[in-house]
Amino acid sequence: MATEASTESAPEAYDELVAKVKRISNVQNAAGVLGWDQQVMMPDEGTPARSQQLSALSAISHELLVEDGIGDLLDDLDSADLSEEQAAVVREVRREFERAARVPTELVQEISETSSEALPAWKEAKAENDFSKFAPLLERHVELKREYAEHIDPDKDPYEVLFAEFEPCLPLEQAEEILDEVRETLVPMIDEIRESESDLATDAFAGTFDEDEQMELSRSTLDTLGYPWERGRIDVAPHPFSTGTMFDARVTTRFDESDPLGAVFSTIHEFGHATYTHGLPDEQYGTPLGEARDLSVHESQSRLWENHVGRSQAFWQQFLPTFQEHFSQSEDVTVEEAYEAANQVYEDNLIRVEADELTYHMHIIIRFEIERMLISGDLDVEDVPEVWNDKYEEYLGVRPETDSEGCLQDIHWSHGNFGYFPTYSLGSVMAAQLFAAAEEDIDDLDGQIREGEFDDLHEWLTSNVHSHGQRYETNDLVVEATGEDFVADYFLDYVTEKYGELYDLDSA
Amino acid sequence: MATEASTESAPEAYDELVAKVKRISNVQNAAGVLGWDQQVMMPDEGTPARSQQLSALSAISHELLVEDGIGDLLDDLDSADLSEEQAAVVREVRREFERAARVPTELVQEISETSSEALPAWKEAKAENDFSKFAPLLERHVELKREYAEHIDPDKDPYEVLFAEFEPCLPLEQAEEILDEVRETLVPMIDEIRESESDLATDAFAGTFDEDEQMELSRSTLDTLGYPWERGRIDVAPHPFSTGTMFDARVTTRFDESDPLGAVFSTIHEFGHATYTHGLPDEQYGTPLGEARDLSVHESQSRLWENHVGRSQAFWQQFLPTFQEHFSQSEDVTVEEAYEAANQVYEDNLIRVEADELTYHMHIIIRFEIERMLISGDLDVEDVPEVWNDKYEEYLGVRPETDSEGCLQDIHWSHGNFGYFPTYSLGSVMAAQLFAAAEEDIDDLDGQIREGEFDDLHEWLTSNVHSHGQRYETNDLVVEATGEDFVADYFLDYVTEKYGELYDLDSA
Repeated sequence: MATEASTESAPEAYDELVAKVKRISNVQNAAGVLGWDQQVMMPDEGTPARSQQLSALSAISHELLVEDGIGDLLDDLDSADLSEEQAAVVREVRREFERAARVPTELVQEISETSSEALPAWKEAKAENDFSKFAPLLERHVELKREYAEHIDPDKDPYEVLFAEFEPCLPLEQAEEILDEVRETLVPMIDEIRESESDLATDAFAGTFDEDEQMELSRSTLDTLGYPWERGRIDVAPHPFSTGTMFDARVTTRFDESDPLGAVFSTIHEFGHATYTHGLPDEQYGTPLGEARDLSVHESQSRLWENHVGRSQAFWQQFLPTFQEHFSQSEDVTVEEAYEAANQVYEDNLIRVEADELTYHMHIIIRFEIERMLISGDLDVEDVPEVWNDKYEEYLGVRPETDSEGCLQDIHWSHGNFGYFPTYSLGSVMAAQLFAAAEEDIDDLDGQIREGEFDDLHEWLTSNVHSHGQRYETNDLVVEATGEDFVADYFLDYVTEKYGELYDLDSA
Repeated sequence: MATEASTESAPEAYDELVAKVKRISNVQNAAGVLGWDQQVMMPDEGTPARSQQLSALSAISHELLVEDGIGDLLDDLDSADLSEEQAAVVREVRREFERAARVPTELVQEISETSSEALPAWKEAKAENDFSKFAPLLERHVELKREYAEHIDPDKDPYEVLFAEFEPCLPLEQAEEILDEVRETLVPMIDEIRESESDLATDAFAGTFDEDEQMELSRSTLDTLGYPWERGRIDVAPHPFSTGTMFDARVTTRFDESDPLGAVFSTIHEFGHATYTHGLPDEQYGTPLGEARDLSVHESQSRLWENHVGRSQAFWQQFLPTFQEHFSQSEDVTVEEAYEAANQVYEDNLIRVEADELTYHMHIIIRFEIERMLISGDLDVEDVPEVWNDKYEEYLGVRPETDSEGCLQDIHWSHGNFGYFPTYSLGSVMAAQLFAAAEEDIDDLDGQIREGEFDDLHEWLTSNVHSHGQRYETNDLVVEATGEDFVADYFLDYVTEKYGELYDLDSA
């Protein structure tokens, strides 16, 4: 009788839950459009109104989650008979609800307002190389985020709580183990490369490359990879990002006249993110099954396309002529030279988004260490620039001369995002594992890339990763797609083989 | 004792009311950004998600207005001691609340969803000259809007109820009287012009004008008039519009290679709208005092800039060299020729947005008559194209050959906006009255325009119109600004004098 009752009432409560969740999702997606507009289209003085609009949407979305009966519906569904997909939806909503219910609306609103103020302050500070213009807002973010973590779980390390906001299904401990393995392999490898006398074609793309033409090249790059223009667009943003839904997933990129590869890889990277979004099932728009798994998985998609496709020799074999159509000044560059230029390890790189595939992870580790100290209170905001510069000197052998190319380079802290950076490295590691599985399943993937044929890869990623939305938790998703737990091995094998060959390393 | 209590509680209830109103305004302004994006930036297949996002925001905004305690606060403030400004805010909120409270949320949501579906259907129907692709959605809009009016006031003519949505402070009867006077003066005047053997320089700007350069010219036009770029931007839209807040009021325009004046006047028109928005007081953002009075007043600002400034001889005296800098092909055009070309009365004009200052009002009257018949049920949607074409033949002596240049030309019905069109003519009439008052107050306004000096005019409009927001109701605002009731006289004098001179009419 009890079972019957719960079976009968389950669908109704479930439908009600889904309707409420869709409304929240629509509010959040609306905020996503406003955020895109703020970074790409909005005039300078639009901030006061935009800040209040985003803050209102954020507060409404929070209230709809915690004050609109979702808690009761979750209780009703506690022992209901649900399909696997329904159970996944309930699991995801419950996790969101439980976190959100512990945080007061006012605090959420304050964080949102601080972000809207911090964005232009960060821009100005970076443009003027004046950390003091950003410091008060960073300090407010740190305080608010500590308070935030305290509300969610006062007994836990606040950083663990903040990390779980971006990676709810991946224990911080597991993440740290993977990052430790990466560090242990990469540090000596980077050392060895630094000491090697390489003759890589690092200046294959030296010169000046017109920015308008780089935009055309970016469009051609998206054409090559199969970007669906009817569901997206490309624009310029100082810190490139991708945003949207499966119906409209946009990318942004940026240009440096002296670095055309920067725009190419930035575009491919954001293409990878957008491709994940495009691969989510249309009919699940607004539910967790129509939303991407968390940040590491998202980053695995961008890194897979950027590194495993875009930085491969096969890709450059077919893409180099396209590049040369846009920039005839590079007509003498060979595929091997392009491949080497695309994979050189920089010895004096200060900027994360311009970093190579190896030193990149050192950039992440530095941020990770500084974030942990900031949140734990072991580091004052005013000391961030010095500690930052010291760490760069220690780990990478270079000291930033300005804060603009030091601790002000990234946008993330202006959003109050702490615990976000590690997901970048985790995503790269996951990309290697997924790509290895795709290589197993797809007949001659390397040959297909060499031909500019990406349909099988798109199909593999869509069916094994994208189409699931949040149906599986992170580790389960990796098992479903690759048959194995999420491990560092494939990434370590990949970099060891690739860079061993490129730099003729003893360790390879 | 009772008075004391209400005096003491007034500010608190008032502050609460304002906070709630600001939240609603933020949701609506967020929807405004999404609407702009939909028309200017969104990729084709983005509609399903955008439609749901706008629909959710519309429903939330409606619920916040009618279900979030605003009714109780208005009751509390009923007999409270309020300043004039506070009383105006309460008056405006009460009007909105009372209308909205009578309409069920589901109906509001349905109308919003229909609009989102109707927009692409209208675009397709217009592109393919196929009214049947738009008809079912127009029919649904008519039914929904009749139902809507019935909820608000079942005893009133539903068209009167719908008109009041756009012109809440102007009785339909007064509006009709003004439009009657306009019709009575213009019909014989247009007849006389048609029969006159004019030798106006109608082909002064014949030729082909590059669209990219027209965009540059539009930017120069905005520069000339003093558009604050730090608070706006210009883009292209098939049906130009302006949207935003005082912090970010954007304009759109459109280009026709054979009609460079079309883009100039479209840009100036939207500039006029944006200027009104920019002139609202920053500190009142989100309250009725920071929002524009209704559509006629808004249109008075666009028409004042478009017609009284942009189509004046004085304006062309200083603007023609700017035009010629962009289009050297027009270097031999004289100021008098430019002025004549800008003011020619078309005898075969089918398109409202390309109409001249006189026949324009016939376009409006045709729509007004068709709308009234549609809403009253005297006309079926399927018969709209024929009735439309008959009326054009009757009033303007031309018959559209396609529905694309007939009843499908305008976007408004795809939004379900009935009762909106008359405000266009009313705005033109009001523009003449305001401009006459500005000419009285400003020393040599014509001379200033001749010098490209617009500061005094901006200041006059800001202090007499923009800065008041919704503090005064429409008629009171006109009295405040001009010292007289809103009447047709100034407009009739203006067109009689101007066109009498241009076409050497007997009646002038």
